[in-house]
Amino acid sequence: MLKTNQNCNIGFVGLGVMGKNLALNVADHGYRVAGFDLDAEKIKDVLDTEERERPDSQNEARIIGCSNIEELLGSLVKPRVIVVLVPAGKPVDAVCDSLIEAGLEPDDIVVDCGNSQWTDTIRREAEYKDRLKFFGTAVSGGEVGARFGPSLMPGGDADSWKYLQPMWEAVAAKVDADGNPIVSNIPGKPVTEGEPCTAYLGPNGAGHYVKMVHNGIEYADMQLICEAYHLLRSLLGYEPAEIGKLFEKWNQGVLNSYLVEITADILQQYDHKTGAPLVDMILDSAGQKGTGRWTSISATQMGVPAGIISESVYARALSTLTAEREHAAGILTADVESGDIEAADVEKAIEEALYCAKICAYAQGFQLLRAAEKEYDWTLNFTDIAKIWRGGCIIRASFLQKIADAFIENHDLENLLLNDYFANAMAEKQSGLRKAVVLAAQSGVPTPSFFSALAYFDGYRSEVLPANLLQAQRDYFGAHTYARVDDDSSQKYHTFWQEEGRPERKA
Amino acid sequence: MLKTNQNCNIGFVGLGVMGKNLALNVADHGYRVAGFDLDAEKIKDVLDTEERERPDSQNEARIIGCSNIEELLGSLVKPRVIVVLVPAGKPVDAVCDSLIEAGLEPDDIVVDCGNSQWTDTIRREAEYKDRLKFFGTAVSGGEVGARFGPSLMPGGDADSWKYLQPMWEAVAAKVDADGNPIVSNIPGKPVTEGEPCTAYLGPNGAGHYVKMVHNGIEYADMQLICEAYHLLRSLLGYEPAEIGKLFEKWNQGVLNSYLVEITADILQQYDHKTGAPLVDMILDSAGQKGTGRWTSISATQMGVPAGIISESVYARALSTLTAEREHAAGILTADVESGDIEAADVEKAIEEALYCAKICAYAQGFQLLRAAEKEYDWTLNFTDIAKIWRGGCIIRASFLQKIADAFIENHDLENLLLNDYFANAMAEKQSGLRKAVVLAAQSGVPTPSFFSALAYFDGYRSEVLPANLLQAQRDYFGAHTYARVDDDSSQKYHTFWQEEGRPERKA
Repeated sequence: MLKTNQNCNIGFVGLGVMGKNLALNVADHGYRVAGFDLDAEKIKDVLDTEERERPDSQNEARIIGCSNIEELLGSLVKPRVIVVLVPAGKPVDAVCDSLIEAGLEPDDIVVDCGNSQWTDTIRREAEYKDRLKFFGTAVSGGEVGARFGPSLMPGGDADSWKYLQPMWEAVAAKVDADGNPIVSNIPGKPVTEGEPCTAYLGPNGAGHYVKMVHNGIEYADMQLICEAYHLLRSLLGYEPAEIGKLFEKWNQGVLNSYLVEITADILQQYDHKTGAPLVDMILDSAGQKGTGRWTSISATQMGVPAGIISESVYARALSTLTAEREHAAGILTADVESGDIEAADVEKAIEEALYCAKICAYAQGFQLLRAAEKEYDWTLNFTDIAKIWRGGCIIRASFLQKIADAFIENHDLENLLLNDYFANAMAEKQSGLRKAVVLAAQSGVPTPSFFSALAYFDGYRSEVLPANLLQAQRDYFGAHTYARVDDDSSQKYHTFWQEEGRPERKA
Repeated sequence: MLKTNQNCNIGFVGLGVMGKNLALNVADHGYRVAGFDLDAEKIKDVLDTEERERPDSQNEARIIGCSNIEELLGSLVKPRVIVVLVPAGKPVDAVCDSLIEAGLEPDDIVVDCGNSQWTDTIRREAEYKDRLKFFGTAVSGGEVGARFGPSLMPGGDADSWKYLQPMWEAVAAKVDADGNPIVSNIPGKPVTEGEPCTAYLGPNGAGHYVKMVHNGIEYADMQLICEAYHLLRSLLGYEPAEIGKLFEKWNQGVLNSYLVEITADILQQYDHKTGAPLVDMILDSAGQKGTGRWTSISATQMGVPAGIISESVYARALSTLTAEREHAAGILTADVESGDIEAADVEKAIEEALYCAKICAYAQGFQLLRAAEKEYDWTLNFTDIAKIWRGGCIIRASFLQKIADAFIENHDLENLLLNDYFANAMAEKQSGLRKAVVLAAQSGVPTPSFFSALAYFDGYRSEVLPANLLQAQRDYFGAHTYARVDDDSSQKYHTFWQEEGRPERKA
C-alpha cells in the first residue's frame, strides 16, 4: 500500500458498497482519499478498482489504504474530515469511540453518511460535542448514485459545513438550468457543471430527517405506481409489456420520473428461463429496511396526516403474508362488478389518478417536514429540499421543479395543494382519481394508497368534518368536553348527557 | 376521619375521578377501602360521597381516608393490595418509590390502574421485582364504568392474580348468558350475577397492551360511525335527528353497540341556545389522548397492517386544522357528481359498509394482539379478550360475542375474516361497502376509514399483489434482490438491470 503523510483530504471508515463508491466518486473529483475497513479484502477491492479506473493522465494513486485507524488519522490534513459508512446503530458509536481513542481532535469532523435515524444523529451531535464535530449526511441514490452523483442531505454543525461544502458540491448529482439531471456514468469523467444536488439543511439530525421523509415519499411513489399497474392489468387485461409501453408514454409527460422510467423498463423484460414476463416470476412479497416505517411513526407522533405513506408501508407488510393471502383467497368471496369500460378512458383516469395521488403524497411529506422543523427547532429551506431531490435520488422527477417553484413563490406555503399550479392540477385531474377509486372499489382491486390520497384531498378541502359528532361522543362517554362553533375554541363545554334536559355548561 | 388498623382489603392512591369511582365500586361489593390523595379535598369528597350513598343496612364507613402513605400501609391486611390511579408516566414511579420508602414489603401488590403505556408496565414489573409485585390493570368505561362496572384488563405476576381475582371479578361489569351487559347504576346495589368482564391476560404489560388495542379499535369504530353520518347527511341531505333515528334502528340489528346507541341519542339533541341540532354547534376539531397513536405506531413497528386504525388517528389530526381547512375549502375546487340515488339503497349500503368496515377494524386489532403475543412472549386468550369487552367498555357490542365464538371455535384462527360467520357476513354485505366507497369518491365526501377497510379486505383476499413489481423496482435501484415464484422464497435473485441481456443470477 502506498503511504503518504497528512496529505489526504478525506478519510473513509467502511468501504462496503456505499463507502467504496462514494470514495471513488470523491477521488474522481481530484480529492485525495484515505480509506480504512476492518475487512482488508474491502480495502484491496477499492484500491484495485481505483487503479483500474484511474485516468491515464493520473500517475499516482488517488486513494490510499490504511491498515488501522491511527494510520488513517495520520494521513489526513487538519481539520480532518472522516466519512463513516458503517451499518446504522451501534457501529457508528463504536467508530466514533475508536477515532477518539486514536487521537481525533475536537475540530475534526466525523460525517455519518449511513442510514442513521435522525434522533441518533441529534444525540450523537450533542454527546460528542467536545471531542469531535459530529455531522450527518444522508446519501440517496444507491450504489450508482454514490459512484456518479448522489443527492446529499447534510445536517450538522454550521461551521463544519464550510469544510465539507466544496467536496459535497463536487460529488453530488447535478441538474441543468431546467432542473433535469446531467448524468455521466464514466469513471474518471465526472459531471463538473450544473447545480449540485446538495445544500446545508440545518443542525444535527436535519439531514437524516429529510432523507427519511424522502424515503417515506419513495414508498408512496412506488406503491402508487404498483397500484396503477395492478388496475391496468386487472381492468383492461393488459400484458406487462403493454403497461410498460404506457408508462414509457407517461414518462414523457407530467409523470416524468426515474421510478416511472425504470417501471417502464422492468415491465418490458422477459424471464430468461420461462419466457414469461419477468415481473410474473417475481414473488409478490415486498421487503423494507425501516425508513418508511419511521416516517409513518414520526407523522403519527407529531399528528401530521400522512395516510398515503402509512398505507404504502402497510401494503408492503400485507404483501409479505403470501401463504395467508393464498389461503384467504380461497375463503373470501368477491362480489364485484365488471361494468362497461373504455380502455382509453381507463388509461387516462389512471394516469391522472397517479399524478393527483403523487401530489397528495408529496404534500404530506412536506407537511411532515414543516412539523419536524417546529418540533426540532430547525429552519428548513423547502425550496432547497425540493431542488436537491431533482437529481441523484430515487424520487427524482421533473415534478420536483414545480415543488421548488411553489416554495420559491411562497416559502410559507401552508400546504403544497394550496399552490396555484398544484391546485389547478387537482382541479383538472381529480376526476381521474375519483374514477380510479370507483373502478378499484367496484372491481375489487386493492388500491390503499389511491384511496388514502383521495380521502386526504377531500378531507383537507372540507370546511366541516364529522369530528363534531366525534367530539360529542367523547364528551358523552368520557366528559372530554368540546368547543362550540359560536364561541372561542379555547372555551370548553360539557353536556350532562345523563341528566334531565341535557344541560350544557362551560367546563 | 375514621381510623382502623390493618383491616382494609384494598388501598387507593389517587382519588381523582377514576380513583374515586373505582373505590366506591369496590366498597359497594363489601370490601373495606383505605384511600389517600395528595389533595385532601379529594379525600374529603370520596368520604362524603360514600357517606351519602351508604346503604341504610350499613352503619360503618366503608372507605377510610388516610393522611399519608404510612397510614395507608398501616390500614391494610397483608399482602397489601394498593391501586394506583395517578396520571401515566413519572407519577406512577414516584408513587412506587414513596410506597417502598413507607415500608411496603416485597409480597405487597401495587396495581397500576392508569392509562400507562405497556412498555412502562413491562419495565416497572422488572425494575421493582424484588421490592414489590407490580401489576397492571387497565380500566375501560370511563367514570361511569369505574363506578358501576368497568371492563378490567389485568396483566402481571400470575401469583398476585389470586389476591386480585375475587375483587376484580366482583367490581367488573357483568354480562348475561347471551353476552349482553347487565347494568345497575344504583349506588349500593351493584350487579352481583353474570359473567364478569375481566380475566387474567398475561404477565407484565399484557393488560395495558390489550387496553391500548381496545382504544385503537375504539378510534376506528368512532371514525367509521362519523363517516357513515357524514355520508348520510351529504348524500341524502338528512337532518341529524333523522340520522339519529336511523342509528336507533341500526342499533336493533348486527350493529348493536354502545357507540351506535349514544350516537343515536346525540344526533337527536338540540342546542338550548340556538335551537339548532346540537352536533352542528360543536366544533369539528377532535381531541385525542394518545392511545390511538400508540396503537398505530405499535402496528407499524411490528409490520401489522392496521390502516383503518391509522386512518382514524389521522382523521382526528386533520380535523384539528380547522382554519387551514377553511382556507383550503376556498381554493380547492371539487369536481364531483351527484348521480341518481335511491335513499333506501344508500341507507342499506351505508349500514352494510359500517358493519363490514367494523369487521375489518376488529380483524386488524386482533392481528395486532397476535403479533404482540409473539413480540412480548405472552400467551393471550383471544376468546377472553373478546368476552371482557362485551360489557363495561366503550366498544361493547353484541358483535363481540361473535368474535368470542370465532375464537372458541378455533383459537388459532389466522384472521377474524377467515371465520365462517365473518367470511359470510363479508360475502353478503361487501357490496354495501363497495357502494359506500363509490358514492363517497364520486361525491367528494372524505371517508378514509371506509376506504382503508375496503382496501384491506381486497388486499387480504388477493392471491397476487403488485408487490412483485415493487420488488423489481427495489432490485433495479438498490440491488435489494427478489425471490422467484418458481423457487424457494429464501433463495434470492438479482437481475443486472444495467447489463446487456439483463442477466439474472442467484444472490
